[in-house]
Amino acid sequence: MKTFLDCIPCFIRQALDAGRMASDDPAVHEQMLRDVLRLTSEMRLSDSPPRMGQQIHRRLRDLTGNTDPYAAVKKQFNRMALKLLPELQARAAASKDPFTTAVRLAITGNIIDFGPTGTITEQDALDAVEKALVEPFYGDIHGFRAALEEADTILYLADNAGEIVFDRVLIEYLPLDRITLAVRGVPVINDATAEDAEVAGLTELVEVIDNGSDAPGTLLEDCSAVFRERFYSADLIIAKGQGNFETLSDVPAPIFFLFKAKCPVISGHAGVPLQAQVLVRGNNAT
Amino acid sequence: MKTFLDCIPCFIRQALDAGRMASDDPAVHEQMLRDVLRLTSEMRLSDSPPRMGQQIHRRLRDLTGNTDPYAAVKKQFNRMALKLLPELQARAAASKDPFTTAVRLAITGNIIDFGPTGTITEQDALDAVEKALVEPFYGDIHGFRAALEEADTILYLADNAGEIVFDRVLIEYLPLDRITLAVRGVPVINDATAEDAEVAGLTELVEVIDNGSDAPGTLLEDCSAVFRERFYSADLIIAKGQGNFETLSDVPAPIFFLFKAKCPVISGHAGVPLQAQVLVRGNNAT
Repeated sequence: MKTFLDCIPCFIRQALDAGRMASDDPAVHEQMLRDVLRLTSEMRLSDSPPRMGQQIHRRLRDLTGNTDPYAAVKKQFNRMALKLLPELQARAAASKDPFTTAVRLAITGNIIDFGPTGTITEQDALDAVEKALVEPFYGDIHGFRAALEEADTILYLADNAGEIVFDRVLIEYLPLDRITLAVRGVPVINDATAEDAEVAGLTELVEVIDNGSDAPGTLLEDCSAVFRERFYSADLIIAKGQGNFETLSDVPAPIFFLFKAKCPVISGHAGVPLQAQVLVRGNNAT
Repeated sequence: MKTFLDCIPCFIRQALDAGRMASDDPAVHEQMLRDVLRLTSEMRLSDSPPRMGQQIHRRLRDLTGNTDPYAAVKKQFNRMALKLLPELQARAAASKDPFTTAVRLAITGNIIDFGPTGTITEQDALDAVEKALVEPFYGDIHGFRAALEEADTILYLADNAGEIVFDRVLIEYLPLDRITLAVRGVPVINDATAEDAEVAGLTELVEVIDNGSDAPGTLLEDCSAVFRERFYSADLIIAKGQGNFETLSDVPAPIFFLFKAKCPVISGHAGVPLQAQVLVRGNNAT
């Protein structure tokens, strides 16, 4: 997906928020903002939005000297999600259609905002899950299940820390020996890395690799050769979250995207209502 | 008031909205955005936000060749407000404290968003007025009234088209022979110019001058010498709207600001809750 003009005010807001998250120094906030204003004034709109996200967060790491400004937030997200895990697993198991519930829960992990201070209670999170399980859902869950049954190799592209614990609920309903879970190669925003996969207990369940990249999405040309080989040889790819959708929506590959359409640009591009939970096939996911 | 970092994402959003309001050409929208990203990357934060607004709208006029992109919207705002005028005048006259009601109505004119398509009905607008009359109000209305009684020369700085009709309700409770109404010198956004003052029937009631400037506020160094002379010699100045507050809040002059605190930066600077209706004295309004 290309970058739309409406993405740009959002980049600027995100740059300011990221600067404030990573540093208390107003001079850093100002410099982040000025740098990102200049970068976006010259950006190629044919690039997908996570390409700019990558540049913003490289600049943030350079300016602050902090290689993982979101480390504490990610730990907090994982901790809270792990506290919920037994309840989530029980919810899926007890439901009429455990697989569909597990798919919804995996998307739900992308919805819950644990907040920067991590002050949300377990009950708040469970209430959000409750609500999410009855939200509008767009997609062919039966086609997805059939494709899973036929695939010998399945590549699961994770999205965020915390969310990756919710992914585990779905992964437990998938054929574990055929799954490879891929995470980001380098910390960027609150995206899941190998450490988060381990904390979520996923390294014990499935093979875990990283993509070698620091983009908050999957920019194939930026990923390691090893990852690309796995990507192109997979029979089926499950791509979680908006960042993976933005970077892979035009790639001809057997991808199923699972995400919450949180912004009008994405919902427009995917052809679904804003805030919908979406399971959408990529260009070649037949 | 200086420009805060939080103003900047808002400038970018406004530049895109303004480009789309003034032109159907996506190339113009993109150019507006790129130009404003570059301008803001280099801006002086010690300037008040309307200085950037002035630059944005100069660029918009240059790019589109349209000297008044908001002309149709302004006409629509005036027309709707004029339809409401008899009801507004009656509401003030019938209230327990007509002057205070008129002050609130003048602020209310700054609240109602007639929408870009002007599709709001008269009833919608009256409902909004009804709500606005009971909203939280911050300010010393008795001090304002006392200051008005003592002042021989009163300069009233108008804000927007449409809103200027609401100003008329208040102006009718002021000593007309001591009032000079000032409007912008050149069309910028939907700010009121001499034409709007005439349409609102104000040229028949009070002296009307323009400030000679195309800023969406009152940048004194940018205004005509004639306006500045009137500004500095006035016994009392009534400044309507956020743009006038942003540009004049640090000026030592006997100003009473009347506005709705529509954004967190302004409400923080004024020390009032977000969305409050505010009557606030300037640095020297004693």
